Amino acid sequence: MFVLFTDFGLTGPYTGQMKAVLARRAPTVPAVDLFADAPAFEPQLAASLLAAYAGAFPPGDVFVCVVDPGVGTARAPVVLDADGRRFVGPDNGLFAHVLRRARTVRAWRIDWRPETLSATFHGRDLFAPVAAELAQNAPPPGPPIDPAALDRPDWPHDLPRIVYVDVYGNAMTGLRPTAVPAGSTLWLGDRPLPQARTFADVPPGQPLWYINANGLVEIAVNQGSAAAALSLGVGNPVRIGAA
Amino acid sequence: MFVLFTDFGLTGPYTGQMKAVLARRAPTVPAVDLFADAPAFEPQLAASLLAAYAGAFPPGDVFVCVVDPGVGTARAPVVLDADGRRFVGPDNGLFAHVLRRARTVRAWRIDWRPETLSATFHGRDLFAPVAAELAQNAPPPGPPIDPAALDRPDWPHDLPRIVYVDVYGNAMTGLRPTAVPAGSTLWLGDRPLPQARTFADVPPGQPLWYINANGLVEIAVNQGSAAAALSLGVGNPVRIGAA
Amino acid sequence: MFVLFTDFGLTGPYTGQMKAVLARRAPTVPAVDLFADAPAFEPQLAASLLAAYAGAFPPGDVFVCVVDPGVGTARAPVVLDADGRRFVGPDNGLFAHVLRRARTVRAWRIDWRPETLSATFHGRDLFAPVAAELAQNAPPPGPPIDPAALDRPDWPHDLPRIVYVDVYGNAMTGLRPTAVPAGSTLWLGDRPLPQARTFADVPPGQPLWYINANGLVEIAVNQGSAAAALSLGVGNPVRIGAA
Repeated sequence: MFVLFTDFGLTGPYTGQMKAVLARRAPTVPAVDLFADAPAFEPQLAASLLAAYAGAFPPGDVFVCVVDPGVGTARAPVVLDADGRRFVGPDNGLFAHVLRRARTVRAWRIDWRPETLSATFHGRDLFAPVAAELAQNAPPPGPPIDPAALDRPDWPHDLPRIVYVDVYGNAMTGLRPTAVPAGSTLWLGDRPLPQARTFADVPPGQPLWYINANGLVEIAVNQGSAAAALSLGVGNPVRIGAA
Repeated sequence: MFVLFTDFGLTGPYTGQMKAVLARRAPTVPAVDLFADAPAFEPQLAASLLAAYAGAFPPGDVFVCVVDPGVGTARAPVVLDADGRRFVGPDNGLFAHVLRRARTVRAWRIDWRPETLSATFHGRDLFAPVAAELAQNAPPPGPPIDPAALDRPDWPHDLPRIVYVDVYGNAMTGLRPTAVPAGSTLWLGDRPLPQARTFADVPPGQPLWYINANGLVEIAVNQGSAAAALSLGVGNPVRIGAA
Repeated sequence: MFVLFTDFGLTGPYTGQMKAVLARRAPTVPAVDLFADAPAFEPQLAASLLAAYAGAFPPGDVFVCVVDPGVGTARAPVVLDADGRRFVGPDNGLFAHVLRRARTVRAWRIDWRPETLSATFHGRDLFAPVAAELAQNAPPPGPPIDPAALDRPDWPHDLPRIVYVDVYGNAMTGLRPTAVPAGSTLWLGDRPLPQARTFADVPPGQPLWYINANGLVEIAVNQGSAAAALSLGVGNPVRIGAA
């Protein structure tokens, strides 16, 4: 299965052109859109999101990951194998947490180049063709490299910031539940948020935080938009403090 | 065929994760997105929309329906067979009009639970796996129940409210054409709207109502946005009165 | 492969219903979304966009193209074969540049009508069934017509207007690079824009123009939104002048 993780959106031409390449070159492999609105220009936020969501897919799947503000510059295109999941994308930190959390990692630099490589759309021209090859069990088109040499910025394991706001206005943080231990509380500015198991555990209109279905600390308002009610946006800080 | 009817959006992680489950478990069955922006938190509005659109699909199709503000609470997960179309989702009124309009109905409670069931994403963890089984002709994973025992709120057959605003700003109501008989008129506040057959039957910029391609009374502006021009939003009332 | 080029959006019911027809009638042919947000009501802008993007697909593909403000009126539904690519849609100028740029063109009028033809959704009822037949090598369901008789408005080959704003706020023009020859400059009002190869060739926050991955002149801001920073919208003029 191809799993697409990008900031390309779906309605415009980018995801469709990438899927056209995948469908043409690997017609029997389904492609699903995991995120088409990962944080644009923000590999750090995207790295937290990717690591939390990739873990739910089985070994063998091929992730095509493009949050790539430096497209067309010197950052290397790479292939990773992290516990059997394969990742294709730019070596710009986007894979930092996937690498940290994997038990076994292998890496390759992509040396292959297509006949025509646009300066601004490596997702279509470079990463999708490579992903199609991998999904059909071809070897990565380039030399193995030391995973320690990959771009691994010193980003916190648990990021106390909003990394994604969903269609309901729920705000995911880059925190895992262990980052908010018993006796501590999640704060937005000077407002403490109660923890709940699901939305309906608080009255309609009230905020809560809970552990979302992929293991991230998430802020919501029951039957409402936390983003609107609490003025939350991608990148905003949250704080863990005494209750 | 799987038909998805949700308020999940497409660009974020929810629809993609649900489709990943479907593609993994029922790889030969195509999945189409009917609505990914059904009215969130509003099973009554969604119920009118679902009944109008489901009728155009043939028997055998499997609808995965998730407008579920009570996810993680006691509302039962159910399977319906309504004139041969199968529906999987929460028993919260969402199926009220599908049930009313079907000639023959059977129902089952879903007793099966996955190894891990998140509190907030039954679409992925519960409804999608059940739908995949049904599409491959497995029996529903739970006991038959009396359809009369399903949640059937006393909602009007024809709902005089906006149930959906589309990408053009056209506003669908919960009314079927028979609710606006000859000699009566559709009113928005104190403004009567003329009926037309298609957009271009009125001058550009003028409002109209017409019977949409799925049999709902819909308000539009020729080559413009009715939602913007007439300040319409989901949930707003319309009125049927003398011409 | 089916390639969808519409103004239908993806989250609402239109694209899904059209794909359901395609999947039912041509289950082995994949469908990709090229644009679901082509300029609504604007066949001239859409025509520039379609010609630029269609050229990257191979002969044999079937394009279902619906930007059709006159749906339900007298404009004819047509099939084209342009250098082996097939196009299905309304004869309203949408294909003007595809026709101009093709070496060999054939055309047919669609005479077939489905049992039930809605007044407002020919994409689902007429164009999708015809596309499904074509993809399976059936002949077009109607008589050949002289391509010279198709609607070919006298629109400029290179359109100095914004034809599309993407998810990042990048603004595509209807200009090909040859329209901005060496020694001339692209102007937005009284602001000249520098040309660059890719985003990162200018400092973050700075505007640029470049040749996009499908050969259109496009305006962007490095790591920002040109649409927001420069107040750009679909239809806005640009100007080519002395440097």
